[in-house]
Amino acid sequence: MRRIVAAFAVAAALIGGTAALIPTFSEDAGETAPIFGIKLPEGYRDWRLISVAHEEGKLNDLRAILGNDTAIDAFRAGKETFPDGTIIARLAWDYEKLPESEAAFGQAQSYVAIHPKNGVQFMVKDSKKYAATGGWGFAHFNDGKPGDAKIHEACFGCHQAAASRDFVFNRYAP
Amino acid sequence: MRRIVAAFAVAAALIGGTAALIPTFSEDAGETAPIFGIKLPEGYRDWRLISVAHEEGKLNDLRAILGNDTAIDAFRAGKETFPDGTIIARLAWDYEKLPESEAAFGQAQSYVAIHPKNGVQFMVKDSKKYAATGGWGFAHFNDGKPGDAKIHEACFGCHQAAASRDFVFNRYAP
Repeated sequence: MRRIVAAFAVAAALIGGTAALIPTFSEDAGETAPIFGIKLPEGYRDWRLISVAHEEGKLNDLRAILGNDTAIDAFRAGKETFPDGTIIARLAWDYEKLPESEAAFGQAQSYVAIHPKNGVQFMVKDSKKYAATGGWGFAHFNDGKPGDAKIHEACFGCHQAAASRDFVFNRYAP
Repeated sequence: MRRIVAAFAVAAALIGGTAALIPTFSEDAGETAPIFGIKLPEGYRDWRLISVAHEEGKLNDLRAILGNDTAIDAFRAGKETFPDGTIIARLAWDYEKLPESEAAFGQAQSYVAIHPKNGVQFMVKDSKKYAATGGWGFAHFNDGKPGDAKIHEACFGCHQAAASRDFVFNRYAP
């Protein structure tokens, strides 16, 4: 019996060891964005959906807001402030009219995402590290490369318009 | 040694058993939709993002297309036809102008998803079961309740406009 227990412990350790190794495959990679020192979060395209949006004006895109597990949990719990470790990703795409649904409906009907546009942006919550900017660090990447200092200087000023919701523009789409 | 091997086998069986049990927590639930006999796929709101879109006309919504793992793998591999087991989910929301970004930009800027609209729809690939409709079963739910037969009768006819892409309107947004 002692042997069996020991074997279970070894098996459990092996399983635990495998699980512990997983983060080495999902470390953030590439160059560090200026000011807030954030690297492109690995695997963000696999994160769950927070919401969708359309931007008019110069941005003129269709976009998706994704969140890591901490972000999704906080949104779903309706938290007014987000806990440290929250990361929110904003992806955006140029769009075009879909000919197949125009054919099906007999009128202009669907506008669908095509190629990425306006970069990919992140909000990273760390209330100590980013205390001067509401607890949020901001990062912008184009094709995996960080944007310049100027674009990062503009982030917090713009997000202050959403100060009453912890500087987060988007809401959770149920 | 034999005992240890046996214990490993028991441990493996337990682990395997745990894995095998997981589907009991994610079984499809609720009423079955007419014609194609599909239940609301459990956990679909946690699936990964395929793309985003905007519908004009009577539909007038912002939408997200999510996919189960089989769907995501097939889209990312650029497969021309989808394997059995693929499930594609179409969620849609009414939308409104976001006052916070209008304040930040000084103009109408962002339109964001608010409450669900136009139901939730699914395409389920089973080339044998749904051979008469291109290998796809279709399902529509409003607040978790299946739509009527009429709405399900219309699905395949409309999707024939996308016959050249295995009846799937949306493309993967990179």
